[in-house]
Amino acid sequence: MTIHDYDSVRAVSWSDEGLTLLDQRFLPAKVETQTIQDVIGVARAIREMVVRGAPAIGITAAYGVVLAARDRYAAAPETWKEALEEDLELLAAARPTAVNLAWALRRMRARIEATDSDPVRYLLDEAYRIHQEDIVANRQMGRLGTSLITQPCGVLTHCNTGSLATGGYGTALGVIRYGFETGKIHHVYADETRPWLQGARLTAWELFQDKIPVSLIADSAASYVMKQGTVEWVIVGADRVAANGDIANKIGTYNLAVAARFHGVRFMVVAPTSTVDLESDDGESIPIEMRSPDELLTLGSERLAAEGVDAWNPVFDVTPAELVDAIVTEKGIVLGPNRDEIAALMNSGAS
Amino acid sequence: MTIHDYDSVRAVSWSDEGLTLLDQRFLPAKVETQTIQDVIGVARAIREMVVRGAPAIGITAAYGVVLAARDRYAAAPETWKEALEEDLELLAAARPTAVNLAWALRRMRARIEATDSDPVRYLLDEAYRIHQEDIVANRQMGRLGTSLITQPCGVLTHCNTGSLATGGYGTALGVIRYGFETGKIHHVYADETRPWLQGARLTAWELFQDKIPVSLIADSAASYVMKQGTVEWVIVGADRVAANGDIANKIGTYNLAVAARFHGVRFMVVAPTSTVDLESDDGESIPIEMRSPDELLTLGSERLAAEGVDAWNPVFDVTPAELVDAIVTEKGIVLGPNRDEIAALMNSGAS
Repeated sequence: MTIHDYDSVRAVSWSDEGLTLLDQRFLPAKVETQTIQDVIGVARAIREMVVRGAPAIGITAAYGVVLAARDRYAAAPETWKEALEEDLELLAAARPTAVNLAWALRRMRARIEATDSDPVRYLLDEAYRIHQEDIVANRQMGRLGTSLITQPCGVLTHCNTGSLATGGYGTALGVIRYGFETGKIHHVYADETRPWLQGARLTAWELFQDKIPVSLIADSAASYVMKQGTVEWVIVGADRVAANGDIANKIGTYNLAVAARFHGVRFMVVAPTSTVDLESDDGESIPIEMRSPDELLTLGSERLAAEGVDAWNPVFDVTPAELVDAIVTEKGIVLGPNRDEIAALMNSGAS
Repeated sequence: MTIHDYDSVRAVSWSDEGLTLLDQRFLPAKVETQTIQDVIGVARAIREMVVRGAPAIGITAAYGVVLAARDRYAAAPETWKEALEEDLELLAAARPTAVNLAWALRRMRARIEATDSDPVRYLLDEAYRIHQEDIVANRQMGRLGTSLITQPCGVLTHCNTGSLATGGYGTALGVIRYGFETGKIHHVYADETRPWLQGARLTAWELFQDKIPVSLIADSAASYVMKQGTVEWVIVGADRVAANGDIANKIGTYNLAVAARFHGVRFMVVAPTSTVDLESDDGESIPIEMRSPDELLTLGSERLAAEGVDAWNPVFDVTPAELVDAIVTEKGIVLGPNRDEIAALMNSGAS
C-alpha cells in the first residue's frame, strides 16, 4: 500500500490472516499495517490508538469478538460462551467515550446468545454487516448533510472523521466529500487538532489525496477564520450523542461550537445512529477520557515542556445541544436537537 | 546559566561584548545564548524569533540601534546619521505586528537627532533607560492588574508574557506572579500556544521555576476549562493596542476573548503604554504577520502533515475592544476600553 493509492486505504479490514489495521499513529510519515490474531491484541490496538474514530472502533471491536470466539470455542466448545465474557469486558473497557464500541459489542452479544454451535461464521457475518452498514450510512449522511448547505461555501472541520475513522468514506468528512463533489463546498479549513494532530496527520492527508482544497490551521485560529467570513458551517463528528442531543467529541469541539454561535456560523454534527446513546441522559453523564499528560508534554521523542510541568489532557469535551444546529444520521436529520427529536429519530423505522 | 538558575535568566542583556540574547527557539531543552555585534544580526534574531515578546523586541531593537550607530560612526564620523537610516529601516521591518519595535526606534531616533558627536554613549543611555523603564512598568502593572482580582481564583493565560518576553518579570505573567505572591491567584492554566508552543516551552517553564501551580492545556481545551468554572480571568499580553482599544496579540487570543464572554469569564490585557499605537485607528489597520506554513506543517525535523498540504498561519489576531474588560498599563487601568479612555490614558501625566 502506498500513500498515493488512496482507494485502497482502509482503516480496518478482515481476511483469513486476521484483522488488519492501518497503524494511524505513524501517518502520514509511515503507512504501516498490523495484522492481529487475538482479542488481547485488538483491545491493545484500540487503547493505544492504532485505530481511532468512533465508528472504526466499533467495527474493530466487532471483529475482535470474532477472534475471541474462535479461540474460546477451539479451547472449550462446551463452555466458550462463559469464557468469552472476559473478552467482551476487555474490549468494552478499551476506551470509554465512543459509544459505538459498546453498541457493536451489544450487537455481537445478541448473535452470541442465539448461537450454540461453532459461532465463528455467524459472528463474522455480523461483523461484516456492521462494517457494511457503516459504509452505506456514510454515503447516506454525506447526501443528507450536504442537503443542508444552501450555497457554495467554505467549511471548517476538527479531528479526523474520514476513511480512517469509519468503515467507509467518513461522517463529517463524508459530508465534506459529497459536498465538494456536488459543488456545495469549495474549501476546507482543518484544525490541526492537538494533542494527537489528527487534523494535520490524517484529515489533511485524506483531503489532499482527494484533491479537496484544504488549509491546515492552528486550533486556536478557528475563531479568527470565522471572523473573516469565509466559513458558513462547522462540520464535525461525534463519539457519543446523549438522549437530549448533547454531544461528546474530540477536545476542542465545544470551543468551536461557542465560536460558531458567536459568529453566526452553523454547526453540524454528523454521526450514525450507532453513536446515539439513549442511556446517557445528557452530556454530563458521558464519561470523558483523560489521557496521559505526555501527549501534550512531548511530541515523538522530543520533550516540549520543562521537566516537572503537568498537563490537563481530557481528549473529549461535551457540546450542549443548544449549540448544535443539526445532527445528521443515516436515518435522517435532527434540526435543533432536543430529547423528543432524538427519541423520534431512534424510534423511526427507516434505516 | 542553567535551567534552574532562574534569577539569572534574562531574555536580553548588554555588556561590553555586545547584545546577548537567550535563544528562545530551543527552550527549555537547551539554554543557549547568542552574543550579537552588529545590526544585521539583531534584525535576524528578531525575525527568526531568537527573541520574541513585544516589549523584549523593543528593547532588543534599541540595543540594535546602539550597535548600528557605533559601526556607522566608526566608518564615517561625518555622515553616520544618513547611513544609519538603512539600519533603522532594517530593524523596523524585522517583524510587523508588535508596535514596541517602532516605538523604541522612535525614541532612539529622537536621541540620534539630538546628537552630533560620538553617539554611542548617549544611545546606550537611552537603550538602558528603555530597558529599565520596562522593568519598572512590569512591577507597576503586576500591582494594578492584581488589584482587579477580588477573590482568590484560577486564571488562564496564552503565549508567553514573562521574563522571556519583556525586560522585567512580565506583563500578563507579571500580574500572575504578583497575584500569586499576594494570594489572589492560586492556579494557572497555560495554553500550549501553537504553532510555536510558547506556552508549553516558555510560560510553563517560567511558572514552574517560580513554583506557581500550572496546568498546561491544549489551546482548544480553553473553553472546556472555562465551562468547569475554575477560571475567573483570562490574562494576556498584547503586541499592539489600537486607538479604539482593539488589541492585536498571539493567534488564539481572539478565540479566548469570545469564549470568555460566553462563559462570563473576565478578560484582562496587560501591556505597557509603549504597546499603544494611536496611529492604528482600530484593529483592522494593524498589520497581522503571516509566518511560514512550515511552522504548522513540521515540528523540529519532523514533518507532521502530508507533503503538499498547505497551512494558513497568521501568528496574531485582533480582539475587538468590546470583548476586553480591562487594559492594564503602567500608567493606569482602562476598564471597558474605548477611544476616549485610551486617549485619556495616553495624555495622562503619570508614569
